[in-house]
Amino acid sequence: MRILVTGAAGMVGRKLTRQLMEEGAVGGRAIAALDLHDVVPFDAVSSPKIHVAVHVGDLSDVGASAALVAQRPDLIFHLAGVVSGEAEANLELGYRVNLDGTRALFDAIREAEYAPRVVFTSSIAVYGGPYPDVIPDDFHTVPLTSYGTQKLMSEALLTDYTRRGYFDGIGLRFPTICVRPGKPNKAASGFFSNIIREPLAGQPAVLPVPRDVMHTHASPRSAVGFLMHAATLDGAAVGPRRNITLPGVAVTVGEQIEALQRVAGSDAVALIREEHDDAIWALVKNWPTRFEARRARELGFTAEASFDDIVRAHIEDELSD
Amino acid sequence: MRILVTGAAGMVGRKLTRQLMEEGAVGGRAIAALDLHDVVPFDAVSSPKIHVAVHVGDLSDVGASAALVAQRPDLIFHLAGVVSGEAEANLELGYRVNLDGTRALFDAIREAEYAPRVVFTSSIAVYGGPYPDVIPDDFHTVPLTSYGTQKLMSEALLTDYTRRGYFDGIGLRFPTICVRPGKPNKAASGFFSNIIREPLAGQPAVLPVPRDVMHTHASPRSAVGFLMHAATLDGAAVGPRRNITLPGVAVTVGEQIEALQRVAGSDAVALIREEHDDAIWALVKNWPTRFEARRARELGFTAEASFDDIVRAHIEDELSD
Repeated sequence: MRILVTGAAGMVGRKLTRQLMEEGAVGGRAIAALDLHDVVPFDAVSSPKIHVAVHVGDLSDVGASAALVAQRPDLIFHLAGVVSGEAEANLELGYRVNLDGTRALFDAIREAEYAPRVVFTSSIAVYGGPYPDVIPDDFHTVPLTSYGTQKLMSEALLTDYTRRGYFDGIGLRFPTICVRPGKPNKAASGFFSNIIREPLAGQPAVLPVPRDVMHTHASPRSAVGFLMHAATLDGAAVGPRRNITLPGVAVTVGEQIEALQRVAGSDAVALIREEHDDAIWALVKNWPTRFEARRARELGFTAEASFDDIVRAHIEDELSD
Repeated sequence: MRILVTGAAGMVGRKLTRQLMEEGAVGGRAIAALDLHDVVPFDAVSSPKIHVAVHVGDLSDVGASAALVAQRPDLIFHLAGVVSGEAEANLELGYRVNLDGTRALFDAIREAEYAPRVVFTSSIAVYGGPYPDVIPDDFHTVPLTSYGTQKLMSEALLTDYTRRGYFDGIGLRFPTICVRPGKPNKAASGFFSNIIREPLAGQPAVLPVPRDVMHTHASPRSAVGFLMHAATLDGAAVGPRRNITLPGVAVTVGEQIEALQRVAGSDAVALIREEHDDAIWALVKNWPTRFEARRARELGFTAEASFDDIVRAHIEDELSD
C-alpha cells in the first residue's frame, strides 16, 4: 500500500513516520511507498523495503494537492497546519494553511475519485467555554480561537465529503499532546510540556497560569497510537459523525507537578517558576477541561491512565539510551 | 443609515425590503440608502425618502463584495445562498455560493475596517440526527447535507470574525419557513408549504412523507421579525456564541393538516394526496424535530404560538386585500 503524510516534518509527523517504517504494514497490508509532505525541507530515513519520497510545498498552491494525490495513496494522514498561536497572530496565514490547504487536499482527493481513508488531526480547540464539568460527545463546538475555527470548518468538510463518498474520513480531536519533546513551538499550550520537559533535563521552566487550571493530555506515543488506530477503523462503525473527541488524562497543572515530583523528585519541581502571562491566560482560561470521550473509547482509542504514565513515556521515549 | 441586503430577490429578501421601506428606520435611525443585491436581475420599489440601488452579481467574484461594502453600510443582512436541494445536487455551486460567497463578503467587511452589524441567515440544517426529544442550544452540529455544512462553516467564520472585532455578527438558525408563498423552489422542505398553500388556493398538493414527521416552522412574517430583531440586538448580551437557534412551532405533518382543517375546512384538506417520495424522505428523515431555543427566547425572538396562527398569517399576508 501507499501512504501519504502531510505535516511530516512536525513532531507528530516524524514520530508517525518512524512508527510506519518500523511496523512496515498497516492493518496487515505491507507499506510499499511512503510520501512525506511538509512546507519546510526535511530529511527522511530511508528503508530497503519502503520507497520513501519527500515532497516540499504548500498544499493551498494550485495543483500541489493534486500532485500528491495523483499516485492514489490508499491512506492519507493529514497532519499539516499552523499552530494555535500562529493562527491567532496571523489571520490570513491561518486560514490559508489550515482551511484552504485542507480544502485543496480534500478537493484533490474528491477529484481523484477513488475514496481512500483520510485521517485528519483536528483539536479540542473546536470547543469553547463555558463548559459543563465533563464535556459530552454531543456538546456544541463554538471555538474561541481562529485555529479552532479553522479546525471546525475542516471537520465539517470532512464529514460532508465522507457522507458523499469522496473519501472515508476520520477526524481526530487531539487533546493537548504532552510532553512535547524538543524546543518550544508557538502553541499557547507549550507551557504544559515545558514544565515537565525542561526540569527533567535540569533546565528551568516558567508556569504562566494558575495551578488549578485543568486540561486533558495525551503523550506523543498516544498521538501516534490514535493515528494508527484510526487508519484501520471500520468506517461503518464510526457512522455519520466522523469527528471523534479522543480520550486523555484530565489533570490540573498542580497535579502535573505532583506527578513530576513522584517520578523525578523535588529537585526537578524546584526548577518551575510561576510567572503569570496575561496573553497565555486569556487563551487558556477558555480551554476545555475534561471530556467524556465515550465514542472514542467505544471505538477502541486508548490513552495513558495517569499523568505519571505520561511523564514516564517521555523519559522512555526521549531521555533513554 | 445605509443598509445592504444580499439575496434581496428571494422570498425573505423581498419581504424584508418591504418592511424596511415601510418602517423607514431601524432602531430609531432613519434609513437613507438601501443597497439590494442578488445574483439574478430584479425590480425594487422606489421611495421618496430612501435611495434604493439594485446590484446584480456573484458575491464570490473577485471584487464584487468589496464594491458592495465600499459605501460602508451600517447594517448588512446576508441572506444570499442556494437552497438545500440545489446545494446537494451541485456540490461546486453550493460551496462556491454558500461558503465562498459568504467568506468573500465577510473578508470584504474585515478589510473595510469599520465593524458593522451583520445579520446572517443560517439554518437548522446545521444539525444532524439522531436527536434528543427536545434539542438544546448546546447540542452539537453535525450536518447531514452539504447545505447544512456550508451554513455551519459560515457560522464558524462569523463567530471568529466577530470575536476578532471585524464586525458584529449575528447568525440566525431559521426553522423551516412556512407557508412559503409563490411557486415551489428546489428546497426539499417545499412540501411543508405546498400542502397548505395549494389547498388554500383550491389546488391539489402532494404529501411525500409520513404524517408523523415532526418539524419546526415559522411564518415568513416571523422570518422578517427575526431579522429586524437581530438588527438592533445588543451584541454584548449575545456573548461569544453568535449563532442562535430560533423559536418556531413544532408540529407533525398530521397536525399541520389538522390546523388547515380548522382554518379552511375539509374541502381544503381533501386536496392533499399522499404519495411517498424516497428522495425527499431520505433528507427529511434526518431533519431535526423540536428545539428548546432558550437563548433565542431570552434574547427576545418570537414566533407564532400555533400552526393555526401560521396558516392565518399566510391568509392575511398573501391571500387578502
